[in-house]
Amino acid sequence: MRMSQYFLPTLKEMPSEAQIVSHRLMLRAGLVRQTSAGIYAWLPFGLRVLRNIERIVREEQDASGAQEVLMPTIQSAELWRESGRYDAYGPEMLRIRDRHDRDMLYGPTNEEMITTLFRDAVKSYRDLPRNLYHIQWKFRDEVRPRFGVMRGREFLMKDNYSFDLDKAGAIRSYNRMFVSYLRTFARMGLRAIPMRADTGPIGGDLSHEFIILAETGESAVFCHKGLVDRDILGRKIDYDGDLQPIVDEWTSLYAATDEKHDGGRFEAEVPAGERLLARGIEVGHIFYFGTKYSKPMNAVVAGPNGDQVTVEMGSYGIGVSRLVGAIIEASHDGAGIVWPESVAPFKVGLLNLKPDDAAVSAACATLYGALGKAGIDCLLDDRDLRPGAKFADMDLVGLPWQVIVGPKGLAAGKVEVKNRRTGAREEVPLDGVVARLG
Amino acid sequence: MRMSQYFLPTLKEMPSEAQIVSHRLMLRAGLVRQTSAGIYAWLPFGLRVLRNIERIVREEQDASGAQEVLMPTIQSAELWRESGRYDAYGPEMLRIRDRHDRDMLYGPTNEEMITTLFRDAVKSYRDLPRNLYHIQWKFRDEVRPRFGVMRGREFLMKDNYSFDLDKAGAIRSYNRMFVSYLRTFARMGLRAIPMRADTGPIGGDLSHEFIILAETGESAVFCHKGLVDRDILGRKIDYDGDLQPIVDEWTSLYAATDEKHDGGRFEAEVPAGERLLARGIEVGHIFYFGTKYSKPMNAVVAGPNGDQVTVEMGSYGIGVSRLVGAIIEASHDGAGIVWPESVAPFKVGLLNLKPDDAAVSAACATLYGALGKAGIDCLLDDRDLRPGAKFADMDLVGLPWQVIVGPKGLAAGKVEVKNRRTGAREEVPLDGVVARLG
Repeated sequence: MRMSQYFLPTLKEMPSEAQIVSHRLMLRAGLVRQTSAGIYAWLPFGLRVLRNIERIVREEQDASGAQEVLMPTIQSAELWRESGRYDAYGPEMLRIRDRHDRDMLYGPTNEEMITTLFRDAVKSYRDLPRNLYHIQWKFRDEVRPRFGVMRGREFLMKDNYSFDLDKAGAIRSYNRMFVSYLRTFARMGLRAIPMRADTGPIGGDLSHEFIILAETGESAVFCHKGLVDRDILGRKIDYDGDLQPIVDEWTSLYAATDEKHDGGRFEAEVPAGERLLARGIEVGHIFYFGTKYSKPMNAVVAGPNGDQVTVEMGSYGIGVSRLVGAIIEASHDGAGIVWPESVAPFKVGLLNLKPDDAAVSAACATLYGALGKAGIDCLLDDRDLRPGAKFADMDLVGLPWQVIVGPKGLAAGKVEVKNRRTGAREEVPLDGVVARLG
Repeated sequence: MRMSQYFLPTLKEMPSEAQIVSHRLMLRAGLVRQTSAGIYAWLPFGLRVLRNIERIVREEQDASGAQEVLMPTIQSAELWRESGRYDAYGPEMLRIRDRHDRDMLYGPTNEEMITTLFRDAVKSYRDLPRNLYHIQWKFRDEVRPRFGVMRGREFLMKDNYSFDLDKAGAIRSYNRMFVSYLRTFARMGLRAIPMRADTGPIGGDLSHEFIILAETGESAVFCHKGLVDRDILGRKIDYDGDLQPIVDEWTSLYAATDEKHDGGRFEAEVPAGERLLARGIEVGHIFYFGTKYSKPMNAVVAGPNGDQVTVEMGSYGIGVSRLVGAIIEASHDGAGIVWPESVAPFKVGLLNLKPDDAAVSAACATLYGALGKAGIDCLLDDRDLRPGAKFADMDLVGLPWQVIVGPKGLAAGKVEVKNRRTGAREEVPLDGVVARLG
């Protein structure tokens, strides 16, 4: 993409309405614009990141055996009356009345709806287990929306729901999501630590939050350092096998946010040199809640003996749009965003330092074409601006690699390749750029 | 995907609530389930079709030079007061009051919002033209939702908006979309005919509907037969070039829905042997409306002479979820759906006629693996059902190719390959299946 033609309105000024760094950077780097309190439009650059995150979430859900559906945003209040949550949910639920005066709502979550879809379609234990997910916009009418997409009102979430014949099966489903979440966040370059959590309005017996570490995180985090270095991506995962040992491995060491923190246990269980006090951001939450919804909503299947069995359920959420902010909180510096490659909107930023120099522009056009041909997404800054403004913008938008083309280097047949994260620079011959970045 | 593990609840019975064939088939083939009046959940099989349609729309938008954004579903009433449409829009707009008693609405379209995003970001004629699209759920509170996803309340739509410095530029943008739409629908196996249309609540001077032909279509259509056979996909399109000749070619012959039909003109302009009376379904609509929104909303840029110029706009819509129904209306037979390959949820259905026969199941497993390896999406019917039920289900769900594996053929090293559309069958050696379908 050529920046001269790209809808990428970067801001030089610090936006006054933004209190946290990810919100400021998302506005300045042209990822989003607020359209109402806590509601955002995604501009092309931000949408590319959102889609990359969505793709990783989808791939990991599919790999775990979950199947994708898509439920609507608007739900009938009737559904929520069946489970008893309609009156309980509080003012965060956006309640709507349609033209026929029927009570509707903008779904903040989907336990009720998925339970009815399941109960109408699945009648036998032979069709279990089932795990259905969707990636859809949700609405929670926060009293004070803030922190940009980190605590917006309309937000994109992956939520899924497992159905099993018994508790043992439900725990296997829970463990699959536990491991799948570790992989999902690791692929985004995040260190996510599962922590025992309260179940809140979803309810249930067993629950973990997945917290990523970020200096500017919303919660204080206390954990064993050993958790930070654990690598899930190097493991071979068999989702049909027994995942309990992996779950145990990740839950055996102390980890808690301030809400659940127990100073005494922390000091007793974690040697002084291994104690990590950090800050974190919640990006995922998983729940096992048994028959909390299946019982009132009568989601039953015929069991092996012909008797009617109420299914055991769990639900699992990842804040997809929230992750865009969370990744920035975890990965930025004074100059701007530093995207992990797996979610970067483009892998390479190509800087034409002298657009009015025919040789420089020709070299940029050649590189741009060659990178595109090699399948490497590239953003070409071909704007008529001074080099300083281009350097600043490219650091701000945070693409992993910069290729800097100026008249001096080019005279020697060379360009500069800069790694955004480390700042390391190297001179690379023009015809070696694709191989260097491929 | 193995049907034994797939969330694909097909129905043998004819659903009584469905009045038209696409609605009946979408319910029977397990594509969607209604969750409230005119609101549908997409099950895995239907979602695959929806995503394929979305992908084609996206690819053609990108190819035309449009850039993707994503605007939220919930909008502020303030925006619509600025354009003057808030009070004018009528009861189809789903009006919402949030917890702070602010008037909000579920967007039925996005002219106002995109105009504010544009005016806040673009200040100079040098940044024109711009064309921004998004694919997002919309809501129109139909008084009597019916015909399944063809006239639902919550629906997925691609809408985009062009911004130009003058009318000539705006017409070029309009023409780009005109041609892009011809390509988009043709890639879905549809015959789409552009017809002059009224501009309705969007407003404006120039407008075309894109109508696809389907025996069960909602409107009567009168047109010159020559339009039906025109092939856009064989043309080389240069979106930077002059597209007026192509637009003229498609608009020079008579075509009108009953609303705009002029019997006298039809008979005068179209020779008797060339007159086509058919039925059609609207799947796209494009508008040029000049400064209708940019003027009240003050979307101006600095022109080449430094003067402030109010931008010229157009908007363009494709009913993405509606297309799932429309394609079925255009492509089905007595046994079920007949998917065009480009949108089919899977290319191949593999029927294991005797799951308890080890040799047959082994052959199916081999084929399933080989097709997957070759990148050919395959749905394997490995369920413990009689052949008759499997034949009926596979015809119903309408995958383009069926591969039928039974003990008799297998003894001779052969399977049957059936083309769903033509019904043609051929015997193919087991190791020739991938090459035959690749």
